[in-house]
Amino acid sequence: MIHQLHALLEGSYEEMVSIRRYLHQHPELSFQETKTAAFISDYYQNLGIECQSNVGGHGVVAKITGSKPGKTVALRADFDALPIQDEKEVSYRSTVPGVMHACGHDGHTATLLVLAKNLHELKDELEGQYIFIHQHAEEYAPGGAKPMIDAGCLDGVDVIFGTHLWATAPTGTVQYTLGPIMAAADRFEILIQGQGGHGAQPHKTRDAIVVGSQLVVALQQIVSRRLNPLDSAVITIGSFVADNAFNVIADKAKIVGTVRTFKEDLRSFISEEIERVVKGTCLAADCTYDYKYFQGYPAVIPHNEETKFLIECTKSVKEVLVAEEIDPDMTGEDFSYYLQKVKGTFFFTGAKPKNDVHTYPHHHPLFDIDEKAMLIAAKTLGTAAVTYHNKYSSTQGE
Amino acid sequence: MIHQLHALLEGSYEEMVSIRRYLHQHPELSFQETKTAAFISDYYQNLGIECQSNVGGHGVVAKITGSKPGKTVALRADFDALPIQDEKEVSYRSTVPGVMHACGHDGHTATLLVLAKNLHELKDELEGQYIFIHQHAEEYAPGGAKPMIDAGCLDGVDVIFGTHLWATAPTGTVQYTLGPIMAAADRFEILIQGQGGHGAQPHKTRDAIVVGSQLVVALQQIVSRRLNPLDSAVITIGSFVADNAFNVIADKAKIVGTVRTFKEDLRSFISEEIERVVKGTCLAADCTYDYKYFQGYPAVIPHNEETKFLIECTKSVKEVLVAEEIDPDMTGEDFSYYLQKVKGTFFFTGAKPKNDVHTYPHHHPLFDIDEKAMLIAAKTLGTAAVTYHNKYSSTQGE
Amino acid sequence: MIHQLHALLEGSYEEMVSIRRYLHQHPELSFQETKTAAFISDYYQNLGIECQSNVGGHGVVAKITGSKPGKTVALRADFDALPIQDEKEVSYRSTVPGVMHACGHDGHTATLLVLAKNLHELKDELEGQYIFIHQHAEEYAPGGAKPMIDAGCLDGVDVIFGTHLWATAPTGTVQYTLGPIMAAADRFEILIQGQGGHGAQPHKTRDAIVVGSQLVVALQQIVSRRLNPLDSAVITIGSFVADNAFNVIADKAKIVGTVRTFKEDLRSFISEEIERVVKGTCLAADCTYDYKYFQGYPAVIPHNEETKFLIECTKSVKEVLVAEEIDPDMTGEDFSYYLQKVKGTFFFTGAKPKNDVHTYPHHHPLFDIDEKAMLIAAKTLGTAAVTYHNKYSSTQGE
Amino acid sequence: MIHQLHALLEGSYEEMVSIRRYLHQHPELSFQETKTAAFISDYYQNLGIECQSNVGGHGVVAKITGSKPGKTVALRADFDALPIQDEKEVSYRSTVPGVMHACGHDGHTATLLVLAKNLHELKDELEGQYIFIHQHAEEYAPGGAKPMIDAGCLDGVDVIFGTHLWATAPTGTVQYTLGPIMAAADRFEILIQGQGGHGAQPHKTRDAIVVGSQLVVALQQIVSRRLNPLDSAVITIGSFVADNAFNVIADKAKIVGTVRTFKEDLRSFISEEIERVVKGTCLAADCTYDYKYFQGYPAVIPHNEETKFLIECTKSVKEVLVAEEIDPDMTGEDFSYYLQKVKGTFFFTGAKPKNDVHTYPHHHPLFDIDEKAMLIAAKTLGTAAVTYHNKYSSTQGE
Repeated sequence: MIHQLHALLEGSYEEMVSIRRYLHQHPELSFQETKTAAFISDYYQNLGIECQSNVGGHGVVAKITGSKPGKTVALRADFDALPIQDEKEVSYRSTVPGVMHACGHDGHTATLLVLAKNLHELKDELEGQYIFIHQHAEEYAPGGAKPMIDAGCLDGVDVIFGTHLWATAPTGTVQYTLGPIMAAADRFEILIQGQGGHGAQPHKTRDAIVVGSQLVVALQQIVSRRLNPLDSAVITIGSFVADNAFNVIADKAKIVGTVRTFKEDLRSFISEEIERVVKGTCLAADCTYDYKYFQGYPAVIPHNEETKFLIECTKSVKEVLVAEEIDPDMTGEDFSYYLQKVKGTFFFTGAKPKNDVHTYPHHHPLFDIDEKAMLIAAKTLGTAAVTYHNKYSSTQGE
Repeated sequence: MIHQLHALLEGSYEEMVSIRRYLHQHPELSFQETKTAAFISDYYQNLGIECQSNVGGHGVVAKITGSKPGKTVALRADFDALPIQDEKEVSYRSTVPGVMHACGHDGHTATLLVLAKNLHELKDELEGQYIFIHQHAEEYAPGGAKPMIDAGCLDGVDVIFGTHLWATAPTGTVQYTLGPIMAAADRFEILIQGQGGHGAQPHKTRDAIVVGSQLVVALQQIVSRRLNPLDSAVITIGSFVADNAFNVIADKAKIVGTVRTFKEDLRSFISEEIERVVKGTCLAADCTYDYKYFQGYPAVIPHNEETKFLIECTKSVKEVLVAEEIDPDMTGEDFSYYLQKVKGTFFFTGAKPKNDVHTYPHHHPLFDIDEKAMLIAAKTLGTAAVTYHNKYSSTQGE
Repeated sequence: MIHQLHALLEGSYEEMVSIRRYLHQHPELSFQETKTAAFISDYYQNLGIECQSNVGGHGVVAKITGSKPGKTVALRADFDALPIQDEKEVSYRSTVPGVMHACGHDGHTATLLVLAKNLHELKDELEGQYIFIHQHAEEYAPGGAKPMIDAGCLDGVDVIFGTHLWATAPTGTVQYTLGPIMAAADRFEILIQGQGGHGAQPHKTRDAIVVGSQLVVALQQIVSRRLNPLDSAVITIGSFVADNAFNVIADKAKIVGTVRTFKEDLRSFISEEIERVVKGTCLAADCTYDYKYFQGYPAVIPHNEETKFLIECTKSVKEVLVAEEIDPDMTGEDFSYYLQKVKGTFFFTGAKPKNDVHTYPHHHPLFDIDEKAMLIAAKTLGTAAVTYHNKYSSTQGE
Repeated sequence: MIHQLHALLEGSYEEMVSIRRYLHQHPELSFQETKTAAFISDYYQNLGIECQSNVGGHGVVAKITGSKPGKTVALRADFDALPIQDEKEVSYRSTVPGVMHACGHDGHTATLLVLAKNLHELKDELEGQYIFIHQHAEEYAPGGAKPMIDAGCLDGVDVIFGTHLWATAPTGTVQYTLGPIMAAADRFEILIQGQGGHGAQPHKTRDAIVVGSQLVVALQQIVSRRLNPLDSAVITIGSFVADNAFNVIADKAKIVGTVRTFKEDLRSFISEEIERVVKGTCLAADCTYDYKYFQGYPAVIPHNEETKFLIECTKSVKEVLVAEEIDPDMTGEDFSYYLQKVKGTFFFTGAKPKNDVHTYPHHHPLFDIDEKAMLIAAKTLGTAAVTYHNKYSSTQGE
């Protein structure tokens, strides 16, 4: 049956490309993806596949039930785009000014739709049930995954698989980790409140620029001294703004940054350490402050058992040339929420455009993917979905 | 004759007020003071006083020649306004949106015009010559003083006197220094050029915010360690801007500040020290930089002999209750250029509005002056001007 | 035969304890271990085991040849002590003032001697050859491993096994890593050369304390900003000395520290980054510097294949209750050199003294081990040694 | 009479030199000057001059009463030496190992003794009373001035004069200030208490070296940002010690420094600001601290009226070639206490050794003075003392 599925997918490749290019030309920003959601539910309805719209927002969830008993397997694709101007010179360039599928979610959606269609054709031979989660708003926290889960999209689900088309890895490569694959990505804001005044009279002021600068320098010590060197973490200040005339002493400095971690308990630890440094630095300078820490998506932590199973599955996908264990990526994804609820895994499907001198990274105005990667993703996800029932039985005892 | 002059001035007080209020209602920004200049030259022409317009820009220079030989004494008043919205609730409020005489130059001009008129009446009894320098563009470097001097306004001048109406000192007070009275005010700009990137990948970047912050902290050592503690100097960073998304590492940080000094040689010394710190800090972080240092006005350094003479003169001005030596002010003035060319002095004439709970400082939207101070300034400057001929003779030997 | 070996070792446990206690009472510092070396070679000579002294210093290498062909397996134990005063109240306390076996090398030696004796008894049944490397000077870089290797102790060796008795892990535990188990431990020295002077005249000096302090703060950024957050590294400044009268400005500051890494290429990278920061910081302050970086032992990186084999072997050692994968330890060991030359592994054998309220860490004046751990180490190393021949065959193809 | 006094002093010059050289050969440390005190009181007793010993310690106070009514004028000389090894190659080199008159107090004493002797000879012509204060322990806080004053040495005194022989100014120069002449010199000690540990495990420690370094950097901001730029102040850290093995994280850092100021209220202000910075910096790093601030001698602030009088007196001293106003010196002196109690002044008498290529500063092992300066000091002090009665009358009205 795997053979049969792969053959069907190969036959549907042109459709996959065509869907992807249509979506690429009609991108929608996070939380505004009404037309894309309608496109997806129309597709399912035209095929007579059971489908629910407006799940936790613009989410769409389709369902196929096999003829034999088995596990309930979920597959997920996100479908929102980014506020970036498409600068590619291609026929399928974005038609929406300032909005672009610069992260490959168009490819994710095309992959999942066509995979669902083909599984639907095979449903008399399938065990178990298949849930197709089309998620809105992955790019913008708090994201679409959480409300979709809250709306029940994982109810009864035994396992979930997801992939990201990955433009920096060659097509034919599947990348995985044993342990976290993507980081928790949090944000913090610090406002230093000093006392302004004339640039020639520092003694009558509390210079917020000097205090803010000292703070930025002191914050480096959290990573260098307060964290276990065996733990990975990043604290980045992306913005420092105290914009006054040259001869005025600043009353305020605004500092905004991000924290990346893999271990859940480090998030609150680092937040508290940042506040300790802010508090002490401001006390030393007789200033006050306002501090806010916003937790973004948690780290994406695949389940090792399911990851090993997925990698085993790639052996039957002839286009997969290499399955390699990689270091985790410090960017974030809200796939983390699914993996906190049910077993499953998340992996990268190499999608580096061929013959490219430069590879444009995700979120770049010239970003593109090798569309062949969609076929590989569909075969891999499909194989995992239809064979998980066996796997699960054999590892039941663990 | 002093007595006579004082009496004339007292009689002209209403005119002084009226001129000042007219100018207050019609302020013009630095280098754009065409109407004010015309008002001044009209005033002189109507009185039949010799007067030259467009001196080094919008400058106006009038001249009265006494009937007896004597020194050539210059008096100076500036006449530009500031880009500040007048928020006072008074009948003479500015009629120009966003432009305001928030530093008292309207009062300076009224004082000098009326003083000239009265001296003109007394000219048969006067020794020497009197030059009335109405200077444009004091508020905005490179200022009007330098081009007016270049255009010859000090040619043949033996001594110059100037005052600033000073809203933070009580009316009746004259303030002076032996040594500098106002600081040199310079400006510098530093651009840190690092390498930007994703907030989660610091090792692929050169974080301009961290480097800029370290720089701000390191620059404190110039004042604390590299300058003679007996010298006064201020280095203030007024603006620090590196404005990116929270999850991006900054490629650039822009830092702008001011340097205040009293000793001429400290200006280049500090500029070099700043560059040394910038250079080393950038080297340590493998960044590059762009550094610019703009010399503003030099320190205003009155000549002690003339200052003592001026203070002696105040004894005959009955409204002067206190003549006090003060610490220098770290703000700047382009009167410095006149004092680099000829002997003279510069002092503050107390002009604090009466019955004020709050005194609004110069450059404040609610700034105002006690107009009585104009009379005091006129008497003091006038007395110094007409008696300097005697003084000079007696100190010739020094 | 494994069963037989384990039984023999159990019968020799008292001898192991007795040897270990004798050595504990007679510790010798690194590079001065002449009596210990003589004790070891006497032991072998009394048993008629072939043995070579003064290998690369005080090293001793013994050799047993089995009756059948097979691999050549090396086992290593170090035998130097530390400059620490033994403060334990035990019968076998050190008799040498200020010198102590505070790291368990006495136990390593006793374990290896008795294991060798028992293997010698079994030699008619053994395959291959067995090399017993008794290494001097592990505690003090450049260490004894390198000269012993240079002297040929690994010639013809196929695999090497070593363990460290580990007082912070419970007896019955074996700890291993897939990847580095111990870090590269380097040392650096920085001398900041400023210009001294009177504490009241900073402008005539270059304050080495301020420069040194700034340097320490700036060095934090190497870990926080310049290294890949996925790589583990530590830069610690252990000593900062600028010891002058309170009213003198320091001409010199001496800063000494350590760098810990797991990846070989990070060592030179970090050394260069430190020098870059030192150079820039000194340039910014017009000071000079002297910088030295001393590479200590490289990271100890076991070969995963041999580690897995070793862990497999522990299954036959009944006293081993747990074999657990651990995070690497950031301390160092010169076992790294052996593993750079031949295949092999290094692991920790739990040796936490029983009934202890406090566990005293290695290098502590009250350090001790649970002697039962020697038996576990001997069985584990012995099992690995005598069964490696089979293992090797089966994995040949990899 | 001035003429007569000067002539007598010229005739006594050889004796002055001889006394100074004797004292130079027999220096005694602060608070241990028993023999020097005895030498002084013997001198007075031999001359029949009233003299009291053990005044507030080893202090000696002699008194001469003129035949006419007048003011009571005190003159002061200190007589302690320093813990420095005399390295000069001269006949009068110190005979006490490690102790040396390296600050000229031997010269002060010789000057005052011989001046007293000569005034005693003239006493029938003198008005008023003359108090000769020979003070012990100037070099070592809390000093001898305070206990001598407490013991009554200033009782009834109207004015006090003192000078310091100044080896860095040419002989023939008298240096004075209008305003402070020497600074308040305070001391502070900061102990940062972190938590030590292994150099490879920063997260288990609180690194006192990093915290101390950050503190040193942050303290620079007190001078650069918190003090009025018109006030002079120095904060110097002379000693930073955290002396551990290179691979240990410091639990403690000891920081010791000095504060120099001219305004009394800045001393407590700066002490509080230092503590604020220490407190905040330690809070930011979760460390504790111990902070001590020791007030040394206050600033020496001559009374302008008496200074001008003294300078007037120098006109009659033919050896005084120049009387120049100087910037204050940031070193300290306990003459400050006398000037807090009674009117008076303190000045520097140039004493630079002639034909010297190098001038060795005070407290240097090769320090010496031009002995001719003693005659100048004696004439100046003597003139001021015997003519003050007139001066005082004339300025009474102020």
